[in-house]
Amino acid sequence: MYFEEFQQGTVYRLDPIQVSREDIIQFAQQYDPQKIHIDEAFSAQGPFGGLIASGYHTLAVVWARWAEAHVMGDESMGGPGLDTVQWLAPVRPGDTLYTTVTITETRRSTSKPRGIIRFRFEVENQDAVPIMVTEGAALIRLRPA
Amino acid sequence: MYFEEFQQGTVYRLDPIQVSREDIIQFAQQYDPQKIHIDEAFSAQGPFGGLIASGYHTLAVVWARWAEAHVMGDESMGGPGLDTVQWLAPVRPGDTLYTTVTITETRRSTSKPRGIIRFRFEVENQDAVPIMVTEGAALIRLRPA
Repeated sequence: MYFEEFQQGTVYRLDPIQVSREDIIQFAQQYDPQKIHIDEAFSAQGPFGGLIASGYHTLAVVWARWAEAHVMGDESMGGPGLDTVQWLAPVRPGDTLYTTVTITETRRSTSKPRGIIRFRFEVENQDAVPIMVTEGAALIRLRPA
Repeated sequence: MYFEEFQQGTVYRLDPIQVSREDIIQFAQQYDPQKIHIDEAFSAQGPFGGLIASGYHTLAVVWARWAEAHVMGDESMGGPGLDTVQWLAPVRPGDTLYTTVTITETRRSTSKPRGIIRFRFEVENQDAVPIMVTEGAALIRLRPA
């Protein structure tokens, strides 16, 4: 999708994400090797009463679903960053994550020939508990003249 | 390290991170399957003139080095989130990333018996080009009385 096709206010519902114990441990071993994410016995005694996913894991799998949805497609020119990442409640083995992505702003760059979209991700688990909120931006190619 | 051992202003220098072409493609295939991260020929024609790493990849490998440094250790109680993630310049195959982590604030929670540290990550490449800045917080166990 070229920039001109994005509309402020559009809401996308991503396919649900199943998070397994193996996923949690495997991601954490590579990217966040803290005991609360990889050690069953340790985490059972801790504040969460069991293994929880790394917040970076949640961020990565949710973003993966968005990229797989191909809304941005090949017209994506990368992202300048995220304004906020809020980890609101733990993700546990067996959880299913439901994500909505809202386009909160669309505007043309004033300095370069491209568009900027801003988005808000809201993630809940199977019990409708809010899990994560992120907001950020992406640069999108303009439709060729 | 318990909360009481953290000091505002302390700067940690993490071990350098080598980012290979294979790393970039492998992470992106799983978590950010956009062509600019996985398709050599496509990305060569794009705004960056070649493959660039997913920003989520950079975030994950930098966080991995921090977790591996075991500064937070087993006293970590998870993180409430990140206040900002700024992707300032692309990471390309063969780049080496140098990261400093500054403890910007330490305070006791007013509502629960635990501490909160705030941190700022600054990442540069081998040419001292700023690559990424992130700021966030972590919850840390208090030293047992």
